[in-house]
Amino acid sequence: MSDLLEQINGPNDIKNIDGKDYPVLAKEIRRFLVKKISRTGGHLASNLGVVELTMAIHLCCDLPKDKIVWDVGHQSYTHKVLTGRKSGFDHLRQHGGMSGFPKCAESDCDVIDTGHSSTSISAALGLAKAREIKGEDYKIFAVIGDGALSGGMAYEALNNAARLKSNLIIVLNDNQMSISKNVGGMSKYLAKIRTNTNYTGLKEEVEHVLQKLPLGLALTDRIRNIKDLIKRLFIPGMLFEDMGLTYIGPIDGHNIKQMKTAFDSASQLNEAVIVHVITQKGKGYLPAQEDPSAFHGVSPFYVKDGKERRQGKKPVTYTEIFSRAIVEEAEKNPSVAAVSAAMPAGTGLTEFAEMFPGRFFDVGIAEEHAVTFAAGMAAGGLHPVVAVYSTFLQRAYDQIIHDICIGNFPVTFAIDRAGLVGSDGETHQGIFDIAFLNHMPNITVMAPKNTWELKEMLHFALHRDTPTAIRYPRGKAYTGLMEYRTPIVHGKCEWIDREKDIALLAVGSMVETAVSVKELLKESGCSVSVINMRFVKPLDEELLEELVKTHTIIVPMEEGVITGGFSEAVSAWYQGYPEITVCPAALPDRFIEHGSVDILKKKYQIDAESIAERIRGILEKR
Amino acid sequence: MSDLLEQINGPNDIKNIDGKDYPVLAKEIRRFLVKKISRTGGHLASNLGVVELTMAIHLCCDLPKDKIVWDVGHQSYTHKVLTGRKSGFDHLRQHGGMSGFPKCAESDCDVIDTGHSSTSISAALGLAKAREIKGEDYKIFAVIGDGALSGGMAYEALNNAARLKSNLIIVLNDNQMSISKNVGGMSKYLAKIRTNTNYTGLKEEVEHVLQKLPLGLALTDRIRNIKDLIKRLFIPGMLFEDMGLTYIGPIDGHNIKQMKTAFDSASQLNEAVIVHVITQKGKGYLPAQEDPSAFHGVSPFYVKDGKERRQGKKPVTYTEIFSRAIVEEAEKNPSVAAVSAAMPAGTGLTEFAEMFPGRFFDVGIAEEHAVTFAAGMAAGGLHPVVAVYSTFLQRAYDQIIHDICIGNFPVTFAIDRAGLVGSDGETHQGIFDIAFLNHMPNITVMAPKNTWELKEMLHFALHRDTPTAIRYPRGKAYTGLMEYRTPIVHGKCEWIDREKDIALLAVGSMVETAVSVKELLKESGCSVSVINMRFVKPLDEELLEELVKTHTIIVPMEEGVITGGFSEAVSAWYQGYPEITVCPAALPDRFIEHGSVDILKKKYQIDAESIAERIRGILEKR
Repeated sequence: MSDLLEQINGPNDIKNIDGKDYPVLAKEIRRFLVKKISRTGGHLASNLGVVELTMAIHLCCDLPKDKIVWDVGHQSYTHKVLTGRKSGFDHLRQHGGMSGFPKCAESDCDVIDTGHSSTSISAALGLAKAREIKGEDYKIFAVIGDGALSGGMAYEALNNAARLKSNLIIVLNDNQMSISKNVGGMSKYLAKIRTNTNYTGLKEEVEHVLQKLPLGLALTDRIRNIKDLIKRLFIPGMLFEDMGLTYIGPIDGHNIKQMKTAFDSASQLNEAVIVHVITQKGKGYLPAQEDPSAFHGVSPFYVKDGKERRQGKKPVTYTEIFSRAIVEEAEKNPSVAAVSAAMPAGTGLTEFAEMFPGRFFDVGIAEEHAVTFAAGMAAGGLHPVVAVYSTFLQRAYDQIIHDICIGNFPVTFAIDRAGLVGSDGETHQGIFDIAFLNHMPNITVMAPKNTWELKEMLHFALHRDTPTAIRYPRGKAYTGLMEYRTPIVHGKCEWIDREKDIALLAVGSMVETAVSVKELLKESGCSVSVINMRFVKPLDEELLEELVKTHTIIVPMEEGVITGGFSEAVSAWYQGYPEITVCPAALPDRFIEHGSVDILKKKYQIDAESIAERIRGILEKR
Repeated sequence: MSDLLEQINGPNDIKNIDGKDYPVLAKEIRRFLVKKISRTGGHLASNLGVVELTMAIHLCCDLPKDKIVWDVGHQSYTHKVLTGRKSGFDHLRQHGGMSGFPKCAESDCDVIDTGHSSTSISAALGLAKAREIKGEDYKIFAVIGDGALSGGMAYEALNNAARLKSNLIIVLNDNQMSISKNVGGMSKYLAKIRTNTNYTGLKEEVEHVLQKLPLGLALTDRIRNIKDLIKRLFIPGMLFEDMGLTYIGPIDGHNIKQMKTAFDSASQLNEAVIVHVITQKGKGYLPAQEDPSAFHGVSPFYVKDGKERRQGKKPVTYTEIFSRAIVEEAEKNPSVAAVSAAMPAGTGLTEFAEMFPGRFFDVGIAEEHAVTFAAGMAAGGLHPVVAVYSTFLQRAYDQIIHDICIGNFPVTFAIDRAGLVGSDGETHQGIFDIAFLNHMPNITVMAPKNTWELKEMLHFALHRDTPTAIRYPRGKAYTGLMEYRTPIVHGKCEWIDREKDIALLAVGSMVETAVSVKELLKESGCSVSVINMRFVKPLDEELLEELVKTHTIIVPMEEGVITGGFSEAVSAWYQGYPEITVCPAALPDRFIEHGSVDILKKKYQIDAESIAERIRGILEKR
């Protein structure tokens, strides 16, 4: 570790650094982050973008007294470096190691755990009100990206921030991107502010001309209105001003002194102030600077060229299968459209977008709008596919009920990252979708056992005229059991192995696990049926009925929370069948921390070994 | 019925009315609405406000080809009158009668069922894209109130509407209110536009002055920038223009010809156009005009003075109990704050707001912000209470998980209108909250049996340092069983009657029903235990265990959807207990239509008679 960074070992240590050395420290932090992340993987481009910004905020703060709320939170690495967590980077995002997001449990300099977008201003406003009510005195910063500003919640908060009578600094970290390129009217507006390079010069000239005007004579009694109007000529952030917020900017987000001056002035005002800061994602590391999307979240890589360390062919993912499948469907069916909430690449819609630009919609980080927009398209005769991560679909819970399910519209949800996602932890695990979709009337909920079946399910869903959700996990897709190709029938399972005694009722990714469980139990001489459920909703009650005659141990298996999910529905169904023992394999009713999916599956006992062992336990007791 | 209205019997009939007669027709429609609603009850003030607005839109439309999306939907009565549904008003909002909201099943002039706020622009944008993709040609109107504009979804949609290359007319129906007075920066901004009466004169004077300017000489090459800047001087809706939307207005929303001209011009543009229309809630009926909040949703009333028809003392509601209880708590505890999403009166926070203005927050129609704002307050050391209707809490599903439960913050949800709400129908029934809260880790979910218990539960929740939800129904609160006052213990039920054989496990409002079920069964000589569950989560497993020894029929009772709810959890728990029969009393997995709560309870068999009958059925089979 280099000299300056060695002096940073706890909160506020940055204040001991000489002002002239800030650029050197920034450089050292960047080098540190690139080196560490190149080994562990993590969020890179966003963190490289906010090194100076974070330093400037810390220079204005007394931590942990002052509060910094990081929107989304994946850009908080420099904040972690500056608050005594350098050593945590050796095990970043690993089980038991440091989280990649702000975590109250990790440091008293983290004020709220974040992971989803557009929440920071709301939380910061809450802090500001608590400060007022308790008569306390501390600074509050909310750091929100321009991408997160496309989320409606941020606007709801801005609308309320306009009424604040105490200080709150909203740092608009404008890097012109969400994970992908940012979209929409607001984004264009910010671009206008940014790109108006003539701005200062123009302003001076117009000012000069206006000084000569006989305004005072003609409109004496309306001088205040005129002042308001003239303000429009000079204030780039007039949209924010119109909303009742004071705007300062735009400011170079890599110039620490400029930012510090802005924050210091802003903190003098008894109101919410937006400080608009322009940063560059990936700054200081060329590969990330040139392709920030690719370096948003990275696996371990070689520092010299940014190439991934992992050698050899990458395993195929469900995202890729979906990507190809939706293009094939769209080729045959002109009614198929696709919607993404700022994640076209992550959800596998890049190719679709290229081939069918007129039918592809990236709506920004705006899941609520995405879903109701799809409802509108369906009402207009299309069959839209909303491709979204499980954890982010949570944000549109009411829209699925109110705008899709009540109208019973033909909208298909392609739910990626359903189940455990691993290193992103609590905020990102896709473990609630089965539970929250299962109680919605009218929707069909499916999960494929392998790559072939995802393709078939998409085809099946797109030929229905009611809502369907298809959930599939992150990472390597299962390519086994390819010989099992029973045609898909609504609400019906697929038998993989028809034996007796023990029945493994596996949902989606758990079919692969079920095959392993059967292998393990074979050694003990057990007779095991493996059933690919295909449908979580409607529940295949005919199957459950049938199993009563031939089986005594029923094992519902799902990568989702047990409460309100598939397992509970199966257990409830078998209530009153004395000869049946239901032994659910699902995740417990708790938030699941970060760590590799394999470790987590073992820890929470939904891996093949643990399940087989539990079944053996039941057998032994008999 | 008067003359002109008699000529309106189906879509587009309004076009046969002579232009000079529009004001007469408007008057007749108002008289019709007041007369009908005075008998059935329904939404009044909002509907009286949009009579001319609806007429103007219909005059520009060819229905059902053209599409009108009504945000929230409770203001669609004139639309119903103009589309051949006059006779429906005799049974408005009654079971089997006409819905109080747009309903596709009711008319092909209704394009999407609505009930929740801020969704219309998203849905209309979806329609516009479907129209483009299918190469069709029709007009699309989204009618959204200024109140609904405080919902983030509306902003997400506006952000996307800026990119639209085909026509969409967004009618901003500005009546300066949501149900209560509207709040926030956007609201202030609109007020500024509205109240600037000098606007036109000022504009002319400034224009005059600017014409004399040597702008052309000094800034020749920047003429386009200057034009842009000057536009700021004259366009009142610059905030919308800044977002990339064309703005027309403000326009008198009771002047049909002016509106028609605006809509006709707007429809010529290949883009999304905001037409800002000023209306008056309650217009034309003095009592409603003077107190629009009180006449938002009304019971049957006397036309002459607006007084309610129902005689005698009104029964006490849980809303009132909560209202008093939170004031008492706040008097003792300075950490208690309260948050409402535009419904302080509906949720019983009016008195709190008056007594503790510094601790009361009406955030506008912005449930997502409300919840995360509360999280922030809790992080800052307060204990906020979010008072909200069950159906609207759906909109903050992710915020409860992500911002409250992960951080395990002390926030209490006071969930009003939980269970069947009656005449508002599908979009408003509060039947999902148990199911969607029950699978969230860390939260405690409670429901009081009577008025005393709601007060106790609020006290209990406010003394915990983790999240709690308390759900209670609409309408008359139960005041029976007042002698049962077992102190509340976390996760523990309260025994009302300890017998054997049959155990009624009742949640909240169902305790009253359970008492009746017991009465009914006594006649058949059954031994029945009545248990007030108090806690849905955590489930009182000790109780369930204990019941095994003494009971054989377990009846979980809840006013909520069966899937993923309390009943399913109890059934699942009793899987493997051969001697136990679980007989759940819960709502089926479907949307529940409008109608009185009593009719609906009977229809869906959660009334005492139906439950007793089902238990008798089980006993007979034995």
